[in-house]
Amino acid sequence: MATSTRTDRSNLVPFSSRLKEGKALAQDVWSIFAAANLPADCINLGQGYMNFAPPKWVTKAAEEALNSVAPNHYSHPRGRIRLREAIKAFYGPQLNRDLDVESEILVTSGANEGQYSVFTAFLEQGDEVIMFEPFFDQYLPSVTFNGGKPVYVPLHPPKDSKLKSSSNEWAIDFDELRRAITPRTKMIIVNTPHNPVGKVFTKQELEGIASIAEEFNLLVMSDEVYDCLVFDGKEHVRIANLPGMWDRTVTVCSAGKAFAATGWRIGWLIAPAYIIQPTLAASTRIVFCSNSPLQEAAATGLEQAKERKFFETQLAEYAERRQILCDAFDQLGLKYTMPEGSYFILLDISKVKFPDDYPFPQSVLGRGRDFRACWFIAVEVGVSSIPVSEFYCEEHANIGEAYARFAFCKDVDTLKAAVERLYRLKDYIEA
Amino acid sequence: MATSTRTDRSNLVPFSSRLKEGKALAQDVWSIFAAANLPADCINLGQGYMNFAPPKWVTKAAEEALNSVAPNHYSHPRGRIRLREAIKAFYGPQLNRDLDVESEILVTSGANEGQYSVFTAFLEQGDEVIMFEPFFDQYLPSVTFNGGKPVYVPLHPPKDSKLKSSSNEWAIDFDELRRAITPRTKMIIVNTPHNPVGKVFTKQELEGIASIAEEFNLLVMSDEVYDCLVFDGKEHVRIANLPGMWDRTVTVCSAGKAFAATGWRIGWLIAPAYIIQPTLAASTRIVFCSNSPLQEAAATGLEQAKERKFFETQLAEYAERRQILCDAFDQLGLKYTMPEGSYFILLDISKVKFPDDYPFPQSVLGRGRDFRACWFIAVEVGVSSIPVSEFYCEEHANIGEAYARFAFCKDVDTLKAAVERLYRLKDYIEA
Repeated sequence: MATSTRTDRSNLVPFSSRLKEGKALAQDVWSIFAAANLPADCINLGQGYMNFAPPKWVTKAAEEALNSVAPNHYSHPRGRIRLREAIKAFYGPQLNRDLDVESEILVTSGANEGQYSVFTAFLEQGDEVIMFEPFFDQYLPSVTFNGGKPVYVPLHPPKDSKLKSSSNEWAIDFDELRRAITPRTKMIIVNTPHNPVGKVFTKQELEGIASIAEEFNLLVMSDEVYDCLVFDGKEHVRIANLPGMWDRTVTVCSAGKAFAATGWRIGWLIAPAYIIQPTLAASTRIVFCSNSPLQEAAATGLEQAKERKFFETQLAEYAERRQILCDAFDQLGLKYTMPEGSYFILLDISKVKFPDDYPFPQSVLGRGRDFRACWFIAVEVGVSSIPVSEFYCEEHANIGEAYARFAFCKDVDTLKAAVERLYRLKDYIEA
Repeated sequence: MATSTRTDRSNLVPFSSRLKEGKALAQDVWSIFAAANLPADCINLGQGYMNFAPPKWVTKAAEEALNSVAPNHYSHPRGRIRLREAIKAFYGPQLNRDLDVESEILVTSGANEGQYSVFTAFLEQGDEVIMFEPFFDQYLPSVTFNGGKPVYVPLHPPKDSKLKSSSNEWAIDFDELRRAITPRTKMIIVNTPHNPVGKVFTKQELEGIASIAEEFNLLVMSDEVYDCLVFDGKEHVRIANLPGMWDRTVTVCSAGKAFAATGWRIGWLIAPAYIIQPTLAASTRIVFCSNSPLQEAAATGLEQAKERKFFETQLAEYAERRQILCDAFDQLGLKYTMPEGSYFILLDISKVKFPDDYPFPQSVLGRGRDFRACWFIAVEVGVSSIPVSEFYCEEHANIGEAYARFAFCKDVDTLKAAVERLYRLKDYIEA
């Protein structure tokens, strides 16, 4: 066997300067708080994936696909026609529109690749993309890799001191949003329900954004991957449905979030043809097409969801899961944001004390206080979460430092066990 | 339902100028020759996917994954550890190297996304990438989307007039290759076994390329997705195995080609850590991770292939398939290139006559003669193939115009039926 020459001849050819921007090579929060780095018995409420399987009637459709011929081979780059028809039937009525499966729907390799392809298709070097902070961390490098420049507009956290606030209280300052627009602004990213805040944008808020998008001729990328997780009878408003907005909006959805299958990598975009066409050209080159067997499964999911009352049942299950964590935070007397949507809760950890000389690993030192707090909670209490300063630009990271994100996309028993452990935080709370 | 405003408000926001290069928005050959555009009973030897299923013992592993929990959720962006271990065990001995699963292997969403990610990771605006013509058509826009500039070096077809030549006779002119190098050259793409020529590059040829790569400090992307399809005892040489070349080579492989599952979108890259690290950073943002259930299946495929003599058996089956087409071309007396590898045969169609006033669709008019010839053969004879000028830059398209690419990744009965039809070409061959 050859001995490795890694040390001697590394970096023979330098990587692209585009990787020097957008934290692309920094150790990301997911790697730092990966299960492998934490105590073996730590309960993982960090990364947002389920600890349960997708529904059997959905996986069964994948099995059927595997046992046939064509669904094991290339899909059309637009997506398998059966899935596109299912998307049309499911979302058409919600968008009040007779969707054209040939030009207005694009299946992608997860919502992530779909969004990346939109950036590839539309950004010129130096084009600005507005994102609300805290933002889903993938947006930043996805924009910079495609030559874009992120522009940050913070959602302002509730200022009052009550223990339980609503995600609705995280507010846009519309003057601030307007000031962020420049002649180079090309796009604005909306994320509703919002990760990590859980905010479901109101019609009024979306109208405010829409009016700015119209005024400055901006594309709107509306990341709605948690659209099936809106609680308490609150309405999920799609910005594409507001007057004039279909024409400039791409709506982003995810089979992984809808069917508890984050590892299937199937998502879809819905938009007018002039947005889908160049995005298809980008996606066709980036991945050529998305995996076929799981497209068949996602199609079955959408086809049968209504009859099976699947999303209603799933929502009730998530509401129960949310309640388990909220009850614990109430008991602990720690401030938190009650999410109206998504499967995340922001806990205010600014009152959680930990020793300054705690044996923190290098990876969390020199980062925000929330990195140390989350590490301490994971190791001492045995429940992992994600520090929220990661979802802010450097200048605004201090806002995020007050919060840890807890995911409740876990079964009830796991959440109950986590809560038992979280009660031990009592010993570390400042009076 | 809203009436569509497609016409009134299209192109509100213009797409990126990067889509104006590299034929990105042109109708590609796959769409023109898609089954839907051809007679319903046309036998499809065009696009390179199988009309048979992956092996049962491999799909069964996917079913098992679907029936568990974790393999339905996010994989590590590097790939599932079981698949990385399987890749290490399978390719390590071939590369004579103890591969590090944490730094030298990256699972990607098909070989295509893997290659795209390498371009994203390494190309600066204006960097030049050398590709041999005919080239796999995805390379071109994948390079231009990432700011790169393709530089073409043709493989020269055999000049003599014998009916059956070997893919080995398609030759590199090394002076021409050397003249193509400029101070901006960053990378050279090698594709062996080669699509569409079927050429398996010899050790001497690869040494010639390696010496140039060393002299000018170039990365080598070695697309070896057909590495399990090398016929007649010919040796598949990996350029990464040549002295000094591990350090500058990324080897690209594909589960879709290996296990007859082109729609699974699982591929992998093997390279030194300094190449994998930025490529991982790119891939993590582009797709985050690849689908999990089919990674488990690919792992099983690699784990059990040797014991089951899978690749030997599969190779013998493909050799039989190749022979069926070759026999027909011999009978017809048409010149063709006998492929040493891959599942493609180039047929010289310059002697196939067709009426100038044949009712060709607009999509093939104004393209090379091969587009019209392939269309004519598909419609009149009932067998589709792919015109090869698509795999050349405009300046060299005339070389490709002489050829049609026939894929033999189809079952024996289908190939026999195709051959019966192809005999009807006799009536259209120039004396």
